[in-house]
Amino acid sequence: MVHNFNAGPSILPKEVFEQASRAIVDYNGTGLSILEIGHRTALFQEVVDEAMATARELMKLDSDHELLFLHGGASTQFFQVPMNLLNEQDTAAYLDGGVWGKKAIKEAKLFGKVEVVASSKDRNYSYLPKGYRIPENASYFHYTTNNTIEGTQMHSIPETAVPLIADMSSDILSRVMDFNRFALIYAGAQKNIGAAGVNMVVVRKDILGHVSRPLPSMMDYREHIAAGSLLNTPPVFAIYVCMLTLRWLKQLGGVSAIEAINDRKAALLYDTLDRLPVFRPTVAKEDRSKMNVVFVMDDETLEKEFLAECKANGMVGVKGHRNVGGFRVSLYNAMPLSSVRTLTELMNEFALKKA
Amino acid sequence: MVHNFNAGPSILPKEVFEQASRAIVDYNGTGLSILEIGHRTALFQEVVDEAMATARELMKLDSDHELLFLHGGASTQFFQVPMNLLNEQDTAAYLDGGVWGKKAIKEAKLFGKVEVVASSKDRNYSYLPKGYRIPENASYFHYTTNNTIEGTQMHSIPETAVPLIADMSSDILSRVMDFNRFALIYAGAQKNIGAAGVNMVVVRKDILGHVSRPLPSMMDYREHIAAGSLLNTPPVFAIYVCMLTLRWLKQLGGVSAIEAINDRKAALLYDTLDRLPVFRPTVAKEDRSKMNVVFVMDDETLEKEFLAECKANGMVGVKGHRNVGGFRVSLYNAMPLSSVRTLTELMNEFALKKA
Repeated sequence: MVHNFNAGPSILPKEVFEQASRAIVDYNGTGLSILEIGHRTALFQEVVDEAMATARELMKLDSDHELLFLHGGASTQFFQVPMNLLNEQDTAAYLDGGVWGKKAIKEAKLFGKVEVVASSKDRNYSYLPKGYRIPENASYFHYTTNNTIEGTQMHSIPETAVPLIADMSSDILSRVMDFNRFALIYAGAQKNIGAAGVNMVVVRKDILGHVSRPLPSMMDYREHIAAGSLLNTPPVFAIYVCMLTLRWLKQLGGVSAIEAINDRKAALLYDTLDRLPVFRPTVAKEDRSKMNVVFVMDDETLEKEFLAECKANGMVGVKGHRNVGGFRVSLYNAMPLSSVRTLTELMNEFALKKA
Repeated sequence: MVHNFNAGPSILPKEVFEQASRAIVDYNGTGLSILEIGHRTALFQEVVDEAMATARELMKLDSDHELLFLHGGASTQFFQVPMNLLNEQDTAAYLDGGVWGKKAIKEAKLFGKVEVVASSKDRNYSYLPKGYRIPENASYFHYTTNNTIEGTQMHSIPETAVPLIADMSSDILSRVMDFNRFALIYAGAQKNIGAAGVNMVVVRKDILGHVSRPLPSMMDYREHIAAGSLLNTPPVFAIYVCMLTLRWLKQLGGVSAIEAINDRKAALLYDTLDRLPVFRPTVAKEDRSKMNVVFVMDDETLEKEFLAECKANGMVGVKGHRNVGGFRVSLYNAMPLSSVRTLTELMNEFALKKA
């Protein structure tokens, strides 16, 4: 039994793996592989339709918002967002709350002015800035809802009249949110939506069409909207896996149902960390992420020892990101509570041995 | 038994489907799905390394050329190429030989000047222009080696000192070519390389770094080269399927071996078409594609009847593109000769019945 705590690409539901595996040799009894069906066929249109409808339903999107599946990852959105929304002489506001936000800021500067409203770089992004002011004349305000690398998560949506844009790659669909408050949301699929190789983008139509620069067709959200995400050959299989994963989440009871499970997983792990002095969470308590739990040990030898024990017990993907060190345990939607329990039991035993 | 003549996404080798299907439930005995392994793990590095090495070997690339797997399809390359290679005041030369070339021209115009050296639009791209002059001062010359929609194929590489750029999406690795003569080659994977959702790009390093515009990181070929195609989370599974497909081609004997098979398939089908007056190939004989065979029937009722017979005999994907009508039969690398034989037998019977 392998427990996969990878930060992404990451665990998906077992049923999704089984269904996807079958579809590769025979998609729905057609005698064709899902990999060889044309993207303009009724067979694939059904997949896209269900993926879109289910995502819309799970997010309770209103009719002002369009939903797209696009090529690339969130890194593509780092430049596609300002390319579509930021005029050269205008200013976009960005929160510098982690490595991914910082990368988004770098790309935005190629297209217009950027005002960084606040930064937590001073303490290696181990907390989220608070009490900043978003300039009212900003074209938009961009932030990262969950910082995969540093393990912080923004627990409320900023109050502002400025159009809100969020990179939700690592916590989308993990908790109830008013998604309609956002002008644009993007998320690489490979955590809570499906497999790597596709982006989900939600965009409020009225913010499009206001930049003066000409846009390449493939970068223009409006063209993808008009084409129903089939402007060119889409990443067929990646969208299919999204459809299966979204269907799984819907059958499980949707976002509120998974949130309850995610809360239990995170509570169990953080409680264990807080109880055992050998482990030290690195993040400010109020900013702790329920998706990526980051902690270190004060003794490097102990870290190596615990890492080896994890490995010996079938736990993979727990090594921390090189920027932070220590450990990072990802608790995405598909991670079962039982795996978290196995990990916390190992932590208890380890602490007892070392006490 | 289904015979899949789809133009793309299209048939892949049966072994590839079987191996990919197994890897989704258990990748190489790791107990993990290929969909849940981190892209920075040794497990995935092996996949990328083998995919790149095999592609380089099959194409006999020299050390001046870099090979990349990038997000998006050829449509992304339509703008990424001029963004990286065409200065605003400079001119790129393009051949207008089909719908895809025309789309590439449209995107290039956003970045610099474009000289269309010749066009076959006058006869719905049913032939390839010849005897044109490529201006010596052009930044590059761009053409499409095989026109998927219209069924034409360029059978030799143009002689010019100008850097050659080719969209080889629908015939790459189907025939022996001196790939090193190109400054840049791109191809969506979903015909002869693997599954939809990834692009293969080959680029000669010396042509990069000469444009004055700043490039978004994800659009800059140099950044992807430096990162070994792992600049961000790549389309993991699509690259894995490329690796399997490239391995299959190598084991089969490489490009010259598949070319011999492709020649037999195309000869069988074109000979049948030429022999049976009820079918009429639409393309100038000297420009016929060995990958996409396009033909019509002079009577629309007969077309419907033959289409129904194809369907009844398990042949899918033979309906022509809406731009041309009639039929389009795609003979990509993975299409077995036996399927082409089944089709030509049906054509013979049909012609006999209607004679």
